[in-house]
Amino acid sequence: MKELFADRMSKVPRSFVREILKVTENPDIISFAGGLPNPISFPHKEIAEVAAVVLSDFSDEALQYATTEGYRPLRNYIANRYQKSGLDVEPDNILMINGSQQGLDLIGKVFLNRDDVMLIERPTYLAAIQAFGLYEPKFVSIPLLDDGIDMDVLKNRLDALNPKLFYSIPNFQNPTGISYSQNKREELGRLFNEHSTVFVEDDPYGEIRFMGKDLPPVMSYLENSVLLGSFSKIVSPGMRMGWIVADNEVMNHLVTAKQASDLHSNFLMQMIVYRYLTGYEVETHLKKIRELYRIQRDCMVSMIKKYFPSDVNYTKPEGGMFLWVTLPDGMSSMELFKVAVDENVAFVPGEAFYSDNPELNTLRLNFSNSNEKKIEEGIKRLGSAIKSLEI
Amino acid sequence: MKELFADRMSKVPRSFVREILKVTENPDIISFAGGLPNPISFPHKEIAEVAAVVLSDFSDEALQYATTEGYRPLRNYIANRYQKSGLDVEPDNILMINGSQQGLDLIGKVFLNRDDVMLIERPTYLAAIQAFGLYEPKFVSIPLLDDGIDMDVLKNRLDALNPKLFYSIPNFQNPTGISYSQNKREELGRLFNEHSTVFVEDDPYGEIRFMGKDLPPVMSYLENSVLLGSFSKIVSPGMRMGWIVADNEVMNHLVTAKQASDLHSNFLMQMIVYRYLTGYEVETHLKKIRELYRIQRDCMVSMIKKYFPSDVNYTKPEGGMFLWVTLPDGMSSMELFKVAVDENVAFVPGEAFYSDNPELNTLRLNFSNSNEKKIEEGIKRLGSAIKSLEI
Repeated sequence: MKELFADRMSKVPRSFVREILKVTENPDIISFAGGLPNPISFPHKEIAEVAAVVLSDFSDEALQYATTEGYRPLRNYIANRYQKSGLDVEPDNILMINGSQQGLDLIGKVFLNRDDVMLIERPTYLAAIQAFGLYEPKFVSIPLLDDGIDMDVLKNRLDALNPKLFYSIPNFQNPTGISYSQNKREELGRLFNEHSTVFVEDDPYGEIRFMGKDLPPVMSYLENSVLLGSFSKIVSPGMRMGWIVADNEVMNHLVTAKQASDLHSNFLMQMIVYRYLTGYEVETHLKKIRELYRIQRDCMVSMIKKYFPSDVNYTKPEGGMFLWVTLPDGMSSMELFKVAVDENVAFVPGEAFYSDNPELNTLRLNFSNSNEKKIEEGIKRLGSAIKSLEI
Repeated sequence: MKELFADRMSKVPRSFVREILKVTENPDIISFAGGLPNPISFPHKEIAEVAAVVLSDFSDEALQYATTEGYRPLRNYIANRYQKSGLDVEPDNILMINGSQQGLDLIGKVFLNRDDVMLIERPTYLAAIQAFGLYEPKFVSIPLLDDGIDMDVLKNRLDALNPKLFYSIPNFQNPTGISYSQNKREELGRLFNEHSTVFVEDDPYGEIRFMGKDLPPVMSYLENSVLLGSFSKIVSPGMRMGWIVADNEVMNHLVTAKQASDLHSNFLMQMIVYRYLTGYEVETHLKKIRELYRIQRDCMVSMIKKYFPSDVNYTKPEGGMFLWVTLPDGMSSMELFKVAVDENVAFVPGEAFYSDNPELNTLRLNFSNSNEKKIEEGIKRLGSAIKSLEI
């Protein structure tokens, strides 16, 4: 019954990442492919404790239908946290969603008509290409430099194309690990305040900075912007809990879209997360995660230095979960993938992260979900796979 | 920045039901407006017990990212339950979603191009009008009779319009409480197997039949169909847990759409619900809910008989949560609503449940969320409000 499906479905590339992740289910494989937090970073005991309290003392409320916007005390907590870091956000401007991924879908729904121009980073988060892609925009990708987006190309495209949206991950981007500099954030503020394009700021990794100094969200400098946050990397991703920050007019539409999409987010979970955040030393927990990921990132960087040929380039992220590798010109990361899997090591070939004209010699490595021993062994295997292709 | 929003957003009527529900927050008001289960029907103690087990023994898995399709043992359980009732469903044909509401969004996404014709019942579930409406179909509504859809009008529309989808709630429909007869289900099978229109069968209330005999899902007789199920009415709605049943080809697209929408459903919750369903006497729990709602429904019917004028018509549902009232010709349920709120009783005026040409003298009453005492008092107040308008 093919003719029955909507046109939009034919425009979503069948993600080969799911196929890749299947390969990595083999327990002999050391996988740098996924984007999973390290489960030792989950607050297991604390979540069990607060779940017991919520389910014994508040279960009438926790198990019942609830408001679309989300659990008010949790929205207050999030707003308060932003306010402390200098961003003026009210609880009414926060909508609780099923992980920040749902924010991409809702933003697509609220803003995108078919064929609207939408700017994205080059490369960018592949599930954003999927989520927005279902609303059939024309993607135009803007190169990322070491300190963030290429401002010259961006200016040019903003002026020439009057795009609806620009989707950006300013902190420890997925897939590259690149962060926007302080200068660039301020410059973006000036630039976007002269244009009607909405800046969509996705910030799932902002709390996991393990080097350098925290930088303000680009939203601090902007009028038209939407900010996405998530508890996936700092509490647990299985809970699917994120949020959107937007001004009243945009929020009004987002709430309508959220209500149509699934009425509201899991309410029991919102009550659990709220009690965890307010009942425990979350800063201590965050420090533990940062330290863990810093050690794993340092290990990966030094093993790359040790085992990869010297003409391989790579980013050195100050936070987040990923590192981006550029192989020598002409080398294909898809070819490398096949060789690597034979050597029992996996990654995601870079082409998944481009909406068009992929750079075929790139790849993404995840360092958050492997301990040092696995990282050393895995990078060693990958180094030898690269060398075997060079010959 | 109005011009920035997508066209689809202007087509969704701002739901006045949310406004109505705000009115009913006043604790003096007896509300038959919402669609809430009675919280005394939630398995509070059991959920707390299984949550403790999952969070102590399986929390690495429960708190981590998971597959889009959902928790395999839970999908096995659901498939098995269908198989026992005679419907041949494999676990691979089940996708776990955030309440069956999300199924409406995913089905819209997968099937509907703008201006596709979509058939709906008249009246129908208002959040379905919202969810599908965002994909901009042309709604064509088919009258409901006492034993289900009007087959003559349906045949005519299927032949004339070649619609993409027909959205139907065959058991204890929201808002009317009407159920399709056995004959009509079989007839629908014959009719739809001659057409390419997909039958979308929404079944959130099927397990809450408190009178009469269980009838097979219309899917039993169909080739092209999609079936939605939910734990909201039998375990807890706050958990947001439902599922879609579809054939392999449709499922493939649904999984892509689900992944783009929010990666996967809350995994901890899926593990909790699975252990609840397999560790406790769910049938005993269901019997308790059915008995509770039967008593409340009987009370509402007899109080209507006692307190409403005799020219008011109403349905007598064999299950579910709602009863549908038709006031005398010319009387407006919106007018009645204003008078009723002054008398501290609330309901949903019927016009919310029509995509066009609403029947202005209709209204929906919920009986699941009020005890007998409240039902008696509320119906008495509503009766006197109706009488005051008749004069």
